Amino acid sequence: MATMTLGEFDLIARYFTRTPRRAALGVGDDCALIGPLPAGQQLAVSSDMLVEGRHFLSTVAPDRLGHKALAVNLSDLAACGAEPIAFTLALAMPRVEEAFLDGFARGLFALADEHGIDLVGGDTTAGPLNICITVFGAVPGGQALLRSGARAGDALWVSGALGDARLALEVFRGTVALAGGAFDSVRRRMECPTPRVALGQALRGLATSAIDLSDGLVGDLGHVLARSGVGATVNADALPMSAALASMPRALQYECMLAGGDDYELLFSAPPTAAREVMAAAEKCGVAVARIGRVEATPGLRIVDDAGALLAQRFTAFDHFRAAP
Amino acid sequence: MATMTLGEFDLIARYFTRTPRRAALGVGDDCALIGPLPAGQQLAVSSDMLVEGRHFLSTVAPDRLGHKALAVNLSDLAACGAEPIAFTLALAMPRVEEAFLDGFARGLFALADEHGIDLVGGDTTAGPLNICITVFGAVPGGQALLRSGARAGDALWVSGALGDARLALEVFRGTVALAGGAFDSVRRRMECPTPRVALGQALRGLATSAIDLSDGLVGDLGHVLARSGVGATVNADALPMSAALASMPRALQYECMLAGGDDYELLFSAPPTAAREVMAAAEKCGVAVARIGRVEATPGLRIVDDAGALLAQRFTAFDHFRAAP
Repeated sequence: MATMTLGEFDLIARYFTRTPRRAALGVGDDCALIGPLPAGQQLAVSSDMLVEGRHFLSTVAPDRLGHKALAVNLSDLAACGAEPIAFTLALAMPRVEEAFLDGFARGLFALADEHGIDLVGGDTTAGPLNICITVFGAVPGGQALLRSGARAGDALWVSGALGDARLALEVFRGTVALAGGAFDSVRRRMECPTPRVALGQALRGLATSAIDLSDGLVGDLGHVLARSGVGATVNADALPMSAALASMPRALQYECMLAGGDDYELLFSAPPTAAREVMAAAEKCGVAVARIGRVEATPGLRIVDDAGALLAQRFTAFDHFRAAP
Repeated sequence: MATMTLGEFDLIARYFTRTPRRAALGVGDDCALIGPLPAGQQLAVSSDMLVEGRHFLSTVAPDRLGHKALAVNLSDLAACGAEPIAFTLALAMPRVEEAFLDGFARGLFALADEHGIDLVGGDTTAGPLNICITVFGAVPGGQALLRSGARAGDALWVSGALGDARLALEVFRGTVALAGGAFDSVRRRMECPTPRVALGQALRGLATSAIDLSDGLVGDLGHVLARSGVGATVNADALPMSAALASMPRALQYECMLAGGDDYELLFSAPPTAAREVMAAAEKCGVAVARIGRVEATPGLRIVDDAGALLAQRFTAFDHFRAAP
């Protein structure tokens, strides 16, 4: 790729300055100004940092990386049931590469436009590639979905399908082979996750707790159980998977769906009596949801198969300090 | 330093989880929740990314780095006249080092406590050292200080003293020698800048424009002039400096004060009739201010000496892609 001699300010002007639609003041002053929000609305904030070799591979196309950097943050807003408003981008790059920036900005703004949100500020600097996006959303006061609300007796649900991102990673690692079309499909799931923003908002008032699946079902459900002071049983054979993953050995399916990470689906709890409403809300949002287990008073997480037998396989959460992707 | 085997979640819990005072929900859920803000208040947001070798030297003490990472962001809020509310921290580190984290958190929280603000969320990951803080403030709607408000006839002011951070850098580079006490003093100015948060708020309704000095006076004033569609004359001999810098050759003084960077003082414009009020506001905040020039209709920046003669020396803004610190 051609290396240019654009300075920091030219760079900001060229790739990242657009007229804000909703924020009062956009890129280029000391601060961005947002709001005032409608009365009674709270601001939901999430910040994620993406590092090469940890959160993405060097082989990812720049537009997909731009998409993913925003998507993983929108996924956090979705898990809170918040409506996205705006975001900031801080970007460290070893050098200014036009082809990278052009693609990155294209993928980033395509997803931003899909959700009607503005890039309102940020920072660019030279340094090892690092992408830090902070995203802002609005949620009616007291109505945010939290990790702490799961209650014994609730049903556990997940959106979409699990494990594809991990399956793609295994192909990159060379432990598994997949035919072209299937590989493209799971690779897209890894590189271009779809944040479940509409579903998150539709679940306000229905779900008792929610989290987005970024570190794998076992790890993320563990956070919900700890925060809520409850336990759960999950039926591994009820977990939704793609056709690509369905063609793999059972042990790998379990590993990908239970400990895979990078799914960016929503895991949520809701009273069994709300099942019909949950399914109606999901259908309205065009997202599949599957009932995968139940919240219980007994602490701990039990993973069983369709026959009710405890799974012997062990699963651990993805940890950004312990494992390379 | 001892390398520990803390995982990502242990790390967050151990060093960065404190009970929030003002935010509704702090570290540990998918999003932090802030507000609702009082009616009519806008949210001011700023995000800065610090990279080793660009924004700080490897020799900096961890507590000073923690301080500086937050200070440079608070300085942006100050330049908008906003009251700090909360911040997020995204941190990439090559490995988990207890001594580093302990010092970093200590410096960070000491400054946060000084301003009564909470760490409400963020991210930690393995990767080359990178610190990205996003800070949130509140400002009455329409009252934020912007870069675009300078008008011909306004006086130009700066807070504090300029050039010390650059002088310290020159000592590290070996181009200048300084005695111990003087070096400690300018090094502290480089590593531990004081954001002018109270002054920024006190200038609301008085200043017509403001910016914080991070890239050097010439470069930062250039942004104000461009945004405001005006020019200016600055008297280089009216620029405030420390005793340490005053002991240096004149050409180096000019270079440090006009193109130094990392000052984190406020540069602002105000009508000449407001001079007394500006000085009273600064005194109330315990910060010195100096009148350094005037805004003019003629485009461009003219730097003169006490005799009114144009300076021949050329000054350029610090650019994080072109220069190492």
